[in-house]
Amino acid sequence: MPDTSKYSVLFEPVKIGPLTARNRFYQVPHCCGMGHVRPQAHAAMREIKAEGGWAVVSTEETEIHPTSDLSPYAEQRLWDDRDIPALRLMTDRVHDNGALAAIELVHNGNHAQNLLTRGPILAPSDMSLSVAYPKQARAMDKADICEFRRWHRNAARRAKQAGFDIVYVYAGHRMTLTQHFLLPEYNDRIDEYGGSLENRSRLIRELLEETHEEVGDSCAVAFRFAVDEMMGADGMQAQEEGCAVVEMLAEVPDLWDVNVSDWTNDSATTRYEPNDGYQTPYIEFVKQLTSKPVVAVGRLNSPDMMVSMVKRGIVDFIGAARPSIADPFLPEKIRTDRIEEIRECIGCNICVSSDTLGVPIRCTQNPTMGEEWRRGWHPEKIDPKKDQDAALVVGAGPAGLECAVQLAKRGYQVTLAEAGNTLGGRAVREARLTGLAAWRRVADHRIYDLQQRANIEAFLDSRMSAADVTELGISNVFVATGASWRRDGVGRTSRLPFKSESPETIMTPDDIMNGLLPNAGPLVIYDDDQAYLAGVLAEHLVARSRDITFVTPASVVSPFTEYTLEQARIQRSLIEKGVKIITGHKLVAVTNSSCEIRCIYTEQPRHLACATLLPVTERIRQSDLFEELQGNARSGIETLELIGDAAMPGLIADAVYSGHMAARNFEVDPEDVAKQLFRREIVSLKNA
Amino acid sequence: MPDTSKYSVLFEPVKIGPLTARNRFYQVPHCCGMGHVRPQAHAAMREIKAEGGWAVVSTEETEIHPTSDLSPYAEQRLWDDRDIPALRLMTDRVHDNGALAAIELVHNGNHAQNLLTRGPILAPSDMSLSVAYPKQARAMDKADICEFRRWHRNAARRAKQAGFDIVYVYAGHRMTLTQHFLLPEYNDRIDEYGGSLENRSRLIRELLEETHEEVGDSCAVAFRFAVDEMMGADGMQAQEEGCAVVEMLAEVPDLWDVNVSDWTNDSATTRYEPNDGYQTPYIEFVKQLTSKPVVAVGRLNSPDMMVSMVKRGIVDFIGAARPSIADPFLPEKIRTDRIEEIRECIGCNICVSSDTLGVPIRCTQNPTMGEEWRRGWHPEKIDPKKDQDAALVVGAGPAGLECAVQLAKRGYQVTLAEAGNTLGGRAVREARLTGLAAWRRVADHRIYDLQQRANIEAFLDSRMSAADVTELGISNVFVATGASWRRDGVGRTSRLPFKSESPETIMTPDDIMNGLLPNAGPLVIYDDDQAYLAGVLAEHLVARSRDITFVTPASVVSPFTEYTLEQARIQRSLIEKGVKIITGHKLVAVTNSSCEIRCIYTEQPRHLACATLLPVTERIRQSDLFEELQGNARSGIETLELIGDAAMPGLIADAVYSGHMAARNFEVDPEDVAKQLFRREIVSLKNA
Repeated sequence: MPDTSKYSVLFEPVKIGPLTARNRFYQVPHCCGMGHVRPQAHAAMREIKAEGGWAVVSTEETEIHPTSDLSPYAEQRLWDDRDIPALRLMTDRVHDNGALAAIELVHNGNHAQNLLTRGPILAPSDMSLSVAYPKQARAMDKADICEFRRWHRNAARRAKQAGFDIVYVYAGHRMTLTQHFLLPEYNDRIDEYGGSLENRSRLIRELLEETHEEVGDSCAVAFRFAVDEMMGADGMQAQEEGCAVVEMLAEVPDLWDVNVSDWTNDSATTRYEPNDGYQTPYIEFVKQLTSKPVVAVGRLNSPDMMVSMVKRGIVDFIGAARPSIADPFLPEKIRTDRIEEIRECIGCNICVSSDTLGVPIRCTQNPTMGEEWRRGWHPEKIDPKKDQDAALVVGAGPAGLECAVQLAKRGYQVTLAEAGNTLGGRAVREARLTGLAAWRRVADHRIYDLQQRANIEAFLDSRMSAADVTELGISNVFVATGASWRRDGVGRTSRLPFKSESPETIMTPDDIMNGLLPNAGPLVIYDDDQAYLAGVLAEHLVARSRDITFVTPASVVSPFTEYTLEQARIQRSLIEKGVKIITGHKLVAVTNSSCEIRCIYTEQPRHLACATLLPVTERIRQSDLFEELQGNARSGIETLELIGDAAMPGLIADAVYSGHMAARNFEVDPEDVAKQLFRREIVSLKNA
Repeated sequence: MPDTSKYSVLFEPVKIGPLTARNRFYQVPHCCGMGHVRPQAHAAMREIKAEGGWAVVSTEETEIHPTSDLSPYAEQRLWDDRDIPALRLMTDRVHDNGALAAIELVHNGNHAQNLLTRGPILAPSDMSLSVAYPKQARAMDKADICEFRRWHRNAARRAKQAGFDIVYVYAGHRMTLTQHFLLPEYNDRIDEYGGSLENRSRLIRELLEETHEEVGDSCAVAFRFAVDEMMGADGMQAQEEGCAVVEMLAEVPDLWDVNVSDWTNDSATTRYEPNDGYQTPYIEFVKQLTSKPVVAVGRLNSPDMMVSMVKRGIVDFIGAARPSIADPFLPEKIRTDRIEEIRECIGCNICVSSDTLGVPIRCTQNPTMGEEWRRGWHPEKIDPKKDQDAALVVGAGPAGLECAVQLAKRGYQVTLAEAGNTLGGRAVREARLTGLAAWRRVADHRIYDLQQRANIEAFLDSRMSAADVTELGISNVFVATGASWRRDGVGRTSRLPFKSESPETIMTPDDIMNGLLPNAGPLVIYDDDQAYLAGVLAEHLVARSRDITFVTPASVVSPFTEYTLEQARIQRSLIEKGVKIITGHKLVAVTNSSCEIRCIYTEQPRHLACATLLPVTERIRQSDLFEELQGNARSGIETLELIGDAAMPGLIADAVYSGHMAARNFEVDPEDVAKQLFRREIVSLKNA
């Protein structure tokens, strides 16, 4: 790296307590649905980050005791010495790649349900669980607090034994006992742990000091702290107690890792926080109050913003969770001046949804995320081609684009034929809708890559018939012809179409994405997809249509988005914009002026005025070309594969993954591919 | 057992294919939240059933392939040979106890999400997933069907290798690919697997025949089949195609295991299906159509009903899932004429909730369920007492009763002091409410047990002060003083009380359970508990109050009951009875004639007429006696323990568990107890 690079400041080493980080790139703790359930997958995923140039690579939250039991979720665990070997897997890999390993110790207080251990639920005061499970937490007495401090100290010692360099005390995301002590809302104690801020922060100070005592000789002690709850005066505010906490504990930790709370605010999606760096206004005061290094986050994708944040004295480290998932090689690409190659996070929170579902992390931009161990995939490396020379990819949506780019990377001569007049397919079409602009990055990243390669030719306006394909004479064909939205209401709730007397009143999501607009008059959006699109369409059309009713058999708008932490924001936004919401109803019939819906519980009918109906229920795979080619025995085609939504309609993440997999597995022994499908981690039968 | 016993018919051996079951007690496959995630716990739990006298002990559903990947749920797995050792743990234990081991092979079709494996989702026709995850299943082509049959055959072979005696083909619960092929709603194929019933059942016939071929020499082949979907003409009906399927395949399997679909119908709770044996009207035709043995279920707790069902030629085997969970020793207790000692299933579905939450099974009646391996608990055995001789238990609710009975069983002289005029506490109080009558069994079982023992003295109307306890001079005291419902609205959604100008308009759940009734005029039930009680109270009061509004911050009524499979029934029932439901709102204030609620999304206020407010939010632990005794240093008390809701308000299951644990751990080395808390199964680090 030339010293004169405008990004050189990002590659300065920074001291953290007794250690030195090699540069300013810091992968803050983030969940990944692996944890103690998938230790090998976890170690391999973190290793890739270290290889990609991050100076610090952290775990997800790590339970320190059976009274912070997050079962069945897959977080880390350090209850006793038996958990050390699994974590050692990670630290060895991180160290081998020149990075420091950090561990985020946690006690989740009343956010833990202890469903496996059935231990007591602990909190500063008596209260319900934070989730709708009928158990209550008990106010900790002095003995409980002593015990808790002992558990934390023991966990810190074990973390050091497992090879960690940085040990966290964690008070954030509204999910941590230490933060619960801080918040008057949770803490009505009248002893020395309640009342004044000094009292409410006593436990944190004790943990920080005791962690220093226990491991501070060789490890740094980090403090992750949510400075603002974004609840105004109802919660902690950066300019009030958030600031006072930093002042009070300024020099106690070796590093401040600051963010906003709760998790929905910290990991806000581009749909509601379109600007990268959105946390800066909340955290920028911190560095003025401490001499210790500060790390902060907020979807920091842009190297220019990173440099500015360091130069303006806002942070010492560029913290990242999601940008490090979308591109584990982000630091290395900046270092080697390959800025354009960065796969920027689109802020869709599919990564978060994996963790909230309890399964390994996935990423829309980075199809290798979570597959480092299971499939042996590397985000930047792919095996060169074997015997075949050329491939045709039909369809340039997310699956087709990814497939074409990866095939080209392998060295094949790739022909990419797109029926439409743009590359990107649904990634571009959906990105035209309100709130989803950043999703275009899925296409942009791949289009840029494609443009750099001499061995891809892309053709627009090139709808292919089976005869066209055969005539072209390319013997390896990947069909990524996508899927289209149904018009008839068939979906999860009903396998039968609704009754329709006037098909002309019906529009599909595809119509809207093609730029058509509903007629004047009442618009009914019927959502049985229950993912994100119907909610997006409602927000998109609300500016154009004064009278929208959103009907869904689900009990909330867009229930899938609970996993992406967006649900409450979506429903609030629609209500505030005047969309009428009717949950728990299914659509059964539509005429030219009204539609009939029925209560899913009682079948009670109800009629709504409806000039236009927009059903968002299910998609039809566009697999005609594939089937025709399949039927053409001996057409000269050796490999024929259906990929993306045409094979299995899903998320954009699934389409990218499908295209990537097809490219990777082309000319690979099917037995080896099958082995990857079966690979999983298995519980030990040794008597514990 | 004397041959003349009226129950002797239940202990006749029955042939199943090449095997003979030792009696007629058959533990049908049931989920347990253990599966491949907790193989040692699983084996120990099934072993107890075999020890308790069941002739056949089955697994839960067992995934046969990565395209039926139920991650993160904890079902069984038999993808390849690597899964055999974990299952062998179970079969060895079952055989050692003289029972046959059965395995339920499954492919879940579009009920699987394949979130770990990301494999294709398979179905007879293109369609959405059955759950609200944005992926769609693909219609299987002929090659897919061939592959599927091969997977099933391979799994059958591996099942035999793992030591199973009975191998299932499974078409039930609306969760299985084979059943999806059967149902016209799911199957619109035009090939030989679609159309006529013969075609739609072709796949099942093939699997049955192929399983016979593969393992039929030494194993029996069972067919689990849902004869009726309880959807009327919209689904399969016992008297229509359900019957035709049995006719068509009558002699193909070695055993028919028949039930109703979906799972909410098969595992109906007593709240909505109060009668044991509720499935009989649907399945009673089956035995007339086949010479093979038939097993059926329906909460069969009563030995007399069992005998009658066998004698009337309805079944050959008494099937049980829940009764075998509540009392694993049910067969043995009947055999040895200890009918009164049976812990009858109360039909609360807490067992189901464990599985739907992905954690080990729990049971309200049987606190040892799920703890056989982790804590080494046995439902019928408990260690005798050590040095101490006497114990006082204060409070005779579920925790106190269980604690007293178990302490007595250990040999202590137990004094049980109850402030009220009945034994049973909340188990009896809640059982007075509409729908929960069967929950009384929690108290009845323990009261019967207590009455048999000379070493328990129970005192009613005996409220104890600290002075009373001290004066009594018993040095080991267990305090089970329960919890009471808050009156001020504090709970999950708000840690601050609502504003109240007229406390006299407020009633609590305790008031209702004490027999008080609301004033005339509009009643508002405010549910921030979000479990079951507020919904029960609404049903209880609807007969007495014409104007009930049910307000909750949740998006549905009683969201926790989704885990117990009751939610839709509850909401339907309340709507049909005229209860007005307002979801997504929190209560902020109450006057003597109205209350103010606010939208949880927008804070938009709304006012409701309200003569009586019944808030169901959170409970206050009644721990005064405990704290006073704790403060009384040197009062002669050696052991002082707070148990049940007084220690941690939770489900009745939690209270029973807490009482049981206290009794078991009394005079046990705390280090040994701590070891149990930390015990868990750990993932192997051997490279898979």
